[in-house]
Amino acid sequence: MAEPDFTAYIDRIEAEVERDLPALPPSLSHVGDMMRYSLAGGGKRIRPLLTLLFCEAAGGDPENALPFAAAVEYVHTYSLIHDDLPCMDNDDVRRGKPSSHVRFGEANALLAGDALLTHAFAAVAKAAETGKVPAENAVAAVRELSLLAGAPGMVGGQYLDLKNEGGGSDADSLLEMDSLKTGALIEAACVLGLLAAGAPEPLFMPARKFARALGLAFQIKDDLIEYEDENDLSDEKNEKSTYITGFGAAEAARLAADYTRQAVDAISAFGEKGETLAALAAALLDRKS
Amino acid sequence: MAEPDFTAYIDRIEAEVERDLPALPPSLSHVGDMMRYSLAGGGKRIRPLLTLLFCEAAGGDPENALPFAAAVEYVHTYSLIHDDLPCMDNDDVRRGKPSSHVRFGEANALLAGDALLTHAFAAVAKAAETGKVPAENAVAAVRELSLLAGAPGMVGGQYLDLKNEGGGSDADSLLEMDSLKTGALIEAACVLGLLAAGAPEPLFMPARKFARALGLAFQIKDDLIEYEDENDLSDEKNEKSTYITGFGAAEAARLAADYTRQAVDAISAFGEKGETLAALAAALLDRKS
Repeated sequence: MAEPDFTAYIDRIEAEVERDLPALPPSLSHVGDMMRYSLAGGGKRIRPLLTLLFCEAAGGDPENALPFAAAVEYVHTYSLIHDDLPCMDNDDVRRGKPSSHVRFGEANALLAGDALLTHAFAAVAKAAETGKVPAENAVAAVRELSLLAGAPGMVGGQYLDLKNEGGGSDADSLLEMDSLKTGALIEAACVLGLLAAGAPEPLFMPARKFARALGLAFQIKDDLIEYEDENDLSDEKNEKSTYITGFGAAEAARLAADYTRQAVDAISAFGEKGETLAALAAALLDRKS
Repeated sequence: MAEPDFTAYIDRIEAEVERDLPALPPSLSHVGDMMRYSLAGGGKRIRPLLTLLFCEAAGGDPENALPFAAAVEYVHTYSLIHDDLPCMDNDDVRRGKPSSHVRFGEANALLAGDALLTHAFAAVAKAAETGKVPAENAVAAVRELSLLAGAPGMVGGQYLDLKNEGGGSDADSLLEMDSLKTGALIEAACVLGLLAAGAPEPLFMPARKFARALGLAFQIKDDLIEYEDENDLSDEKNEKSTYITGFGAAEAARLAADYTRQAVDAISAFGEKGETLAALAAALLDRKS
């Protein structure tokens, strides 16, 4: 299978994210700058890309899914800003530049994250207000994004991650934590794509299965990349459990491949239209960074 | 005018807030407990009360506005948790009990706030999904809540508040800051009540004017109460500008009365049905705490 090229999609996502940020008076322009700082540069845009690709795989016009894609990217970016804060993972660097709190101070970083999370829902609403998506589907998108990003989803996963930071968590705990911390927002990204397309009900469960398997493959691959990159020892510093400490590198690599296969199998419900998604899953397993 | 009694409304709001929290597995029950801890006890519930009263004033059944009211209370509660954090106002006590970060640690408090903010939008969506509110109105509610709670609204106000913490802000800056920090979410509360009722367009601007004036009256009154209560010197500790340091107590009291009068005038567009709202505005001006 040829390496897929998603440049055109990603350009459209980045244009939408920029265009869609809230208009702010001069006294608040710095808040907009802080939101832009963390949104800009270096992100792989996997989640919003999934939103567009699922919309397309369900027969929709990916243009209609752009506001949903932006919403998912806002939520992802807020989660990075808050996770980097000193009281959380205390990471000084994000995507090769100073993290938000290092650049702007802790209080401002907290607010920039809050602003991005809040704005995500305006972006979802915008899809209905501009007629791209029926109001009922935008409401469903709000609910999915809220539950999958909130306490029952991503926030819950971050809570478990913090709780486990002392190490000693077993394999099942790791899988539960990552299903929530990484998998839930990926699931939201895929489901929002289907909602933008007005996809029929039977496509939702395969998309969720794809997302959950891909989320785990993605996180395990992240751990493998980090393990191979001797320069980044931040998780070891925190004595955090990873798939490497839990299973060993060889078994972790096998698991990542296995979950990728599960994701590809799940997507068969989309027939030929799912091929791009299968190619994306394979490319993510092969990535070097 | 008789002192209005809102006990029955507030009981319904508190029941809704409790009933509506997300279902969580045992591993995440502590996240739910933290959300409940900050939602419980001592809040005046002014904002969700305004949502119910505006729904009623526009001829709607306040029952239909309950999910929107809960959403507004979630946003308000998240803002208190984040504002209390050490990097922000560093307040150890909230409503007479330890603030969230003192009770649960800083990282958990951050997450509890994130969880509440995120869940607010599920509550808005719920109003449409249960058929209480048309989907188009729920979408409009999502947009209003997002913009008024986000960077162009409440988050922007908190940003200005932090920036001014060194003191020295003039009267105009104070008014801008409080219009955003306090007024914007009050405006969202009122507008969401109208959206729950399916109110006609001409009622929205009077409601916004009422909310903006009431928000300023409310904040100035807060400063006056704090000034009279010698035990609470937290803002003096931070050398924060208040209406007292800016205008003196007598002029501040005159301003609070003046904004309350503006709020009452604005509500005349609702005729007799606005009388309860006028009574609430008067009661808020007379409050002692």
